[in-house]
Amino acid sequence: MSVICVGTMAFDAIETPFGKVDQIVGGSGTYVAYAASNFVTPIQQISIVGYDFPQEEMDEMTKRGVSLEGVEIVKDKKSFFWSGKYHLDMNSRDTLVTDLNVLADFNPVVPESYQGAEFLILGNLAPEIQLSVINQLTTRPKLIVMDTMNFWMDIAMDGLKEVLKKVDVLLVNDAEARQLSGELSLVKAAKSIMEMGPKFLIIKKGEHGALLFHESHVFFAPALPLEEVFDPTGAGDTFAGGFIGHLAKTKDISFENMKTAIIVGSAMASFCVEKFGPERLKEITKEDIDTRLSEFVQLVNFDIDLV
Amino acid sequence: MSVICVGTMAFDAIETPFGKVDQIVGGSGTYVAYAASNFVTPIQQISIVGYDFPQEEMDEMTKRGVSLEGVEIVKDKKSFFWSGKYHLDMNSRDTLVTDLNVLADFNPVVPESYQGAEFLILGNLAPEIQLSVINQLTTRPKLIVMDTMNFWMDIAMDGLKEVLKKVDVLLVNDAEARQLSGELSLVKAAKSIMEMGPKFLIIKKGEHGALLFHESHVFFAPALPLEEVFDPTGAGDTFAGGFIGHLAKTKDISFENMKTAIIVGSAMASFCVEKFGPERLKEITKEDIDTRLSEFVQLVNFDIDLV
Repeated sequence: MSVICVGTMAFDAIETPFGKVDQIVGGSGTYVAYAASNFVTPIQQISIVGYDFPQEEMDEMTKRGVSLEGVEIVKDKKSFFWSGKYHLDMNSRDTLVTDLNVLADFNPVVPESYQGAEFLILGNLAPEIQLSVINQLTTRPKLIVMDTMNFWMDIAMDGLKEVLKKVDVLLVNDAEARQLSGELSLVKAAKSIMEMGPKFLIIKKGEHGALLFHESHVFFAPALPLEEVFDPTGAGDTFAGGFIGHLAKTKDISFENMKTAIIVGSAMASFCVEKFGPERLKEITKEDIDTRLSEFVQLVNFDIDLV
Repeated sequence: MSVICVGTMAFDAIETPFGKVDQIVGGSGTYVAYAASNFVTPIQQISIVGYDFPQEEMDEMTKRGVSLEGVEIVKDKKSFFWSGKYHLDMNSRDTLVTDLNVLADFNPVVPESYQGAEFLILGNLAPEIQLSVINQLTTRPKLIVMDTMNFWMDIAMDGLKEVLKKVDVLLVNDAEARQLSGELSLVKAAKSIMEMGPKFLIIKKGEHGALLFHESHVFFAPALPLEEVFDPTGAGDTFAGGFIGHLAKTKDISFENMKTAIIVGSAMASFCVEKFGPERLKEITKEDIDTRLSEFVQLVNFDIDLV
C-alpha cells in the first residue's frame, strides 16, 4: 500500500515564546512523510530541494521507508526557506521571510515507479502544482487528500477551485474555511465547500481540535491539552500525515475509519509541537504513539444512558 | 434530592449580529434553574428581584419545580439590568450597561426549608455573597459548584480566593483560568487552581467546548457545531445548570459521572444559544434533550484498536 506525498522539503527559522532556531529542517512534505511512515511504507515523496538540504536528513527519511526518487535536487540553488514568529498565544504567527529559491522552478515529475499508488496527499503548494501531479497519474488513487492555505485563496482562487473538483478530502483551518466559503458559521462553510468537490472536509482548529464533515455527519477530535506547546510549526502537516498514514495502513476510507484517522493525526500533531521542527517525530516509538492514543481515548470517553 | 441555586434573576438587553432585544428575562440563576429543573426538583432558588420582574416568569419557574421561597422581592426598586453587544464572531462581547438596582442590597437569607440540600450551585455573584450562603448552611452540601468571572478577579481577588477554599468544582472560562492562575498553559493553570481549593475545575471555551480537570485527569467535551448561534447569553449558566442537574439526578459525584454531566451541560447550552434569552429552554422536551445527547455521542464517538 503506497502513498504519494507531494510537499515542500525546506528550511525554517522559527521564533516562539519558548525559544528560537535560525535554521531547522521543515517543509510540509517533510512533516507528512515523518508522520505517515509510522503507519505505512513506502511513502513516495515528490518534492524539490537545493544543494544545501542535508544528506543526513534524506538518509533518515530513506531509513524510515520514504522513497526519494521523486525529489529533485537542484545543484545551484538553495532550498525553500520560511521564517516566522509566533505570538504569545501560539495560535497566530507572522511570516517574516519567504525565500522561494528552488520552489520557484518546481515542476514535479511523477516517477514511473510511483504509478498505481492508492493514496495521494497534496501538501500545501500552488494549486497548479497540485493539479499537475493529479493529472500525471495514470490511475486515479483511491483517495486524494489536499491541504492548502489562505495564501492561495488570495492569489489563485480559480486554480484552487479546479483542484478542489478532483480531491476527496480537503484540509483547511477555520479561518480558511470561512474565506473559501464566505460563510461565518463553520457548519454552513462545510456544506458550501463540500459542494465544490471534496466529499470530506477537515477543519483544523489548532489547540481547539479538528472537525470532520461528510454529508450531514460531523465528528470532532480534540487536541490533547499540553503543559507546553513548544513550536506549532508543522503540526497541521503532521496531522495530515498521521491521518493518511492510518487510512493507508487500514485500507479503509469510510467515514467511520476517518474518525479514527483524525484521532491518529491529532496524536501525531501532539508530539510534533513538543520540540522545534520535526525533531520529536524522529524520537517517538510505536509504543509512544499507542500511549498517546490511549490518552485521547481517555480524553473524550464518557458513558451515557439514553433512556 | 434538592439543589440550592444562588444567582441573579434579571433583565438583559442584547444585540447580536442576528438581532436585538431591548428587554428580556435573564440572570445566571434563571438560566441555571431552567436547565437543572429538567433533571431534578426542587431547585431551591436564592435570588433578589425588583417590582418589575414578571410574575408569569416566576409562575413558569414554579411550575417546573423551582422553589422561590428564597427569592426576595423588593417593592420599590428595579431588577438587575445588563446590556451587551456581541461581536461578529460571537466569542466576545462588550458590556454596554450594568445597572445593579436591587443587586446592590443583596444579602441572601437561606430559608429554613432549604437546609439539608445535598447540592449547592453558586452562580456568578460577588464572592462575599457566595461565601455568606455557604456559611449559612448547617450541613455542608455533598457538592458545592461555583461559577465566577474576571470582574471579581479584578476587584475582589482576596474574597474570591476565600470562597475557592470551600468549593468542590469551579467553573471559569479560559481567559479567567489564565488570569486566576497567572499561567498561560491551561494545563498548568488547572494544576495551580486546583491547589487553591477546588478538586475539580471546568474550563469553558464557548464554541470550542469545555475541559474538566481532576487530579492528573483531563476530559474534553466539545460544543455542538451549530449552523447558527443566535444569542450566547446564558450559555455558561445553562451549561452549569445541566451539569449540576445531571449530578443531582444520578447522586453520583465521581469524575466518571462528571464527564457525563459535562456532556449534559453542553447539550443544554447548545439549546440555549438557539434563541434570545431563556426562550428555547422553555420549549424543549425530554425527547429533545435525549436526541441532542445522541448527537453528542455521534460527535465524539470513534473506534480504535490499540494493539
